[in-house]
Amino acid sequence: MTPGSVRCNETFCEMTYIIMPNHLNALDTVFGGQVMAWIDVCAGVSAQRFTKGTVVTASMDHLTFLAPIRKGDVTVLRSQVNWAGRTSLEVGVRVEAEDIRTGERRHTSSAYLTMVSLDDGFHPRQTPTLVPQTPDEIRRFEDAQHRRAVRLEQRERARLREERA
Amino acid sequence: MTPGSVRCNETFCEMTYIIMPNHLNALDTVFGGQVMAWIDVCAGVSAQRFTKGTVVTASMDHLTFLAPIRKGDVTVLRSQVNWAGRTSLEVGVRVEAEDIRTGERRHTSSAYLTMVSLDDGFHPRQTPTLVPQTPDEIRRFEDAQHRRAVRLEQRERARLREERA
Amino acid sequence: MTPGSVRCNETFCEMTYIIMPNHLNALDTVFGGQVMAWIDVCAGVSAQRFTKGTVVTASMDHLTFLAPIRKGDVTVLRSQVNWAGRTSLEVGVRVEAEDIRTGERRHTSSAYLTMVSLDDGFHPRQTPTLVPQTPDEIRRFEDAQHRRAVRLEQRERARLREERA
Amino acid sequence: MTPGSVRCNETFCEMTYIIMPNHLNALDTVFGGQVMAWIDVCAGVSAQRFTKGTVVTASMDHLTFLAPIRKGDVTVLRSQVNWAGRTSLEVGVRVEAEDIRTGERRHTSSAYLTMVSLDDGFHPRQTPTLVPQTPDEIRRFEDAQHRRAVRLEQRERARLREERA
Amino acid sequence: MTPGSVRCNETFCEMTYIIMPNHLNALDTVFGGQVMAWIDVCAGVSAQRFTKGTVVTASMDHLTFLAPIRKGDVTVLRSQVNWAGRTSLEVGVRVEAEDIRTGERRHTSSAYLTMVSLDDGFHPRQTPTLVPQTPDEIRRFEDAQHRRAVRLEQRERARLREERA
Amino acid sequence: MTPGSVRCNETFCEMTYIIMPNHLNALDTVFGGQVMAWIDVCAGVSAQRFTKGTVVTASMDHLTFLAPIRKGDVTVLRSQVNWAGRTSLEVGVRVEAEDIRTGERRHTSSAYLTMVSLDDGFHPRQTPTLVPQTPDEIRRFEDAQHRRAVRLEQRERARLREERA
Repeated sequence: MTPGSVRCNETFCEMTYIIMPNHLNALDTVFGGQVMAWIDVCAGVSAQRFTKGTVVTASMDHLTFLAPIRKGDVTVLRSQVNWAGRTSLEVGVRVEAEDIRTGERRHTSSAYLTMVSLDDGFHPRQTPTLVPQTPDEIRRFEDAQHRRAVRLEQRERARLREERA
Repeated sequence: MTPGSVRCNETFCEMTYIIMPNHLNALDTVFGGQVMAWIDVCAGVSAQRFTKGTVVTASMDHLTFLAPIRKGDVTVLRSQVNWAGRTSLEVGVRVEAEDIRTGERRHTSSAYLTMVSLDDGFHPRQTPTLVPQTPDEIRRFEDAQHRRAVRLEQRERARLREERA
Repeated sequence: MTPGSVRCNETFCEMTYIIMPNHLNALDTVFGGQVMAWIDVCAGVSAQRFTKGTVVTASMDHLTFLAPIRKGDVTVLRSQVNWAGRTSLEVGVRVEAEDIRTGERRHTSSAYLTMVSLDDGFHPRQTPTLVPQTPDEIRRFEDAQHRRAVRLEQRERARLREERA
Repeated sequence: MTPGSVRCNETFCEMTYIIMPNHLNALDTVFGGQVMAWIDVCAGVSAQRFTKGTVVTASMDHLTFLAPIRKGDVTVLRSQVNWAGRTSLEVGVRVEAEDIRTGERRHTSSAYLTMVSLDDGFHPRQTPTLVPQTPDEIRRFEDAQHRRAVRLEQRERARLREERA
Repeated sequence: MTPGSVRCNETFCEMTYIIMPNHLNALDTVFGGQVMAWIDVCAGVSAQRFTKGTVVTASMDHLTFLAPIRKGDVTVLRSQVNWAGRTSLEVGVRVEAEDIRTGERRHTSSAYLTMVSLDDGFHPRQTPTLVPQTPDEIRRFEDAQHRRAVRLEQRERARLREERA
Repeated sequence: MTPGSVRCNETFCEMTYIIMPNHLNALDTVFGGQVMAWIDVCAGVSAQRFTKGTVVTASMDHLTFLAPIRKGDVTVLRSQVNWAGRTSLEVGVRVEAEDIRTGERRHTSSAYLTMVSLDDGFHPRQTPTLVPQTPDEIRRFEDAQHRRAVRLEQRERARLREERA
């Protein structure tokens, strides 16, 4: 590890909630917008633990809602930096709902957030080097690279469509 | 228009906010998670105006944050259904911040949400036929189809990677 | 239209909400204080779109609650400047609840707010000229004048009562 | 006092708040909609102490904002039933901001709310007899009667205008 | 009473709430953390009315939850300064739930908070002299002294245990 | 480990927050009541992971505020069950603020909560056996026993004082 390098697991963040009535939507399951807000905070902590400075969310992709969360469920969010470029980075967040009676957890949401490292003048700032170590971390690093390529391609496609329109 | 058909603009929803201190993050710009929560509600109204019933958010993609929103800014969200399949549909949401002194608006966020139409037993339910009419609506319909194809391809790719892991 | 004149419909503001459990009172209908808070924001946006500057709420009158709003209802607020004097103005707000199954809307609340235009030093500031154009806008302008006369008369009456007391 | 009679001061309610950042608007004074929400709760407690049952807010009038409230101010709301008819009643609420250094209080808002007494089936329900006793309570009772007369007259006027329109 | 002396009852603070769905936990009784937050504000007002300046909460003890509070209950908090030392003071808070049908109140929580008086530079600042007058106030003053002794003794015990560990 | 036994660390819960403006008090440090609310949730998760069922907070003691937390600070709460009796248990919660620039954490609050295990009819329910294993867990178990003895003694003292009064 060279100085200024950061291991993926040093960016780990965990958040826990008990679902109460003010987290619910009109269907009495957790309001999706509430989960999104929690995901944004969880990702922000990981990104800050990585850059040791200010970050802002640039985009979010692949946010999925796989199963409803209900009143009384314990909800656990976990995030970690997957990939880092020169000034931007990708954080993955996984949300699980825990059944208190059995201790079982079911996967309810995932998301990938691109965040940008900023200096005190709010200009982009070089990130540290991210060092994936386990096979899982290496797979996540590569997947993030692939998602980034698709993202850039889609953005280019949208730009061209708009020009033509 | 056959019966049960819905025009894109019949699903239009507008939401307006004045940014107050409890919407801000630690940088004194709007907390991204707050914008995500507003986007989820705005998309939900459009989807409900289309299906005339219950909907849930299945996924969100291409959420971008292009510019910060500040205290006192008037923020306007607009959403419309872009595309509909058998039981799912895509809603596009655009967020703008309005400068009260000049009336100018700047584009600050966009997002695409996939929502699923549900019956009273919370099972997937056939959506009405969506009828894009203007060139802009037709372009959005086609773009949504392309995004859907990329989404399914990426999901398949992720599934295969996980199997191999 | 002389320069500095503003049409009533240029001050239009629309806000949309889905009613969730944290908007409810102990009777499981929408908490009236929540509706009041939304009305104040909606009126504030209209007033700011008219004055292109800072405004504060000076008073609210004729706020009526005609029908309860329930969980899951889509609620739409609409406001417009009705009348403007030298430094104050009246905004009218109408609240409707929308039945998602049928698309029907029922009128649930109205209110009239008097707002004051302020300069950067928080002193009263001349408002633009408001130009009512449609018969409906002209009727609202006249009604607002009448409400203002009654308001001033009642304030004077209250002042005299207090002096005597 | 006959049985079922209630004195005005038996309906008294006091609420106290310290103003924190999440109560502020974009001007860093208390958000008017927040004060309105507090007023609605305070009036509701007085009305319930009077009817010993369910009440709903039917209307609010003469809500005035006389002076801004700032961060750190202690804010005190006080309410009491002023007048009662067969099934409706008027509650007056007074809001004061307290300067912690000197103990002085300044009057910042007042409002009059008409509330309706309901039975368990949500139908209007006879109120108890209200017994004003002090000269101040008698004055408030009479003022409330006058406000009610003006309110009914204005409502009639609005109805006629709408018919003609 | 010497100048700068304050009577216990001059520090009295009352707060009133109607319990709504967003105050509830997953068991549909009031969320304990919400009651704690209200207690902290109520104690803070009493302490500020005593010191006529800034205070911070240093500790809370003997917070008890004796009975659940339910949706629709009117909840009343009352606080008063019990004891004051050189720069710190103890505030007692009592929480009661009021049955609207009968007017009866049941005791649901109590707590004792130690607060510290601060000057504008956030350094400890001499408190006024507290003057307990009624037998009840004198009993509370003595009880607070005893609690303080136990508190200091337990803190010392914890310090020693940690040194040994 | 006999069946039904639970290790202390199996009850561990971690919660993470970024401090935003709506968490602040009038001094622009974190509102103590907000920290109390977070502590209550964190303790509740630990207690539920221990009892695998419903719990309610019975009391909180020794809540200390050692240092202010500021906007932008990452705040981490950690809790674990310290001791368990027949139907009640003690949870310890530690709050730390993390300096994002350096990664250093400072201890800002601690608290001990007594919670009661309930069955589905809300009656006290036997807890599992808690198995402290490390020297630290054993020390915490003994300290909790001592705190419980002091608590019972103080409650008895208060009861006697009240009888005499």
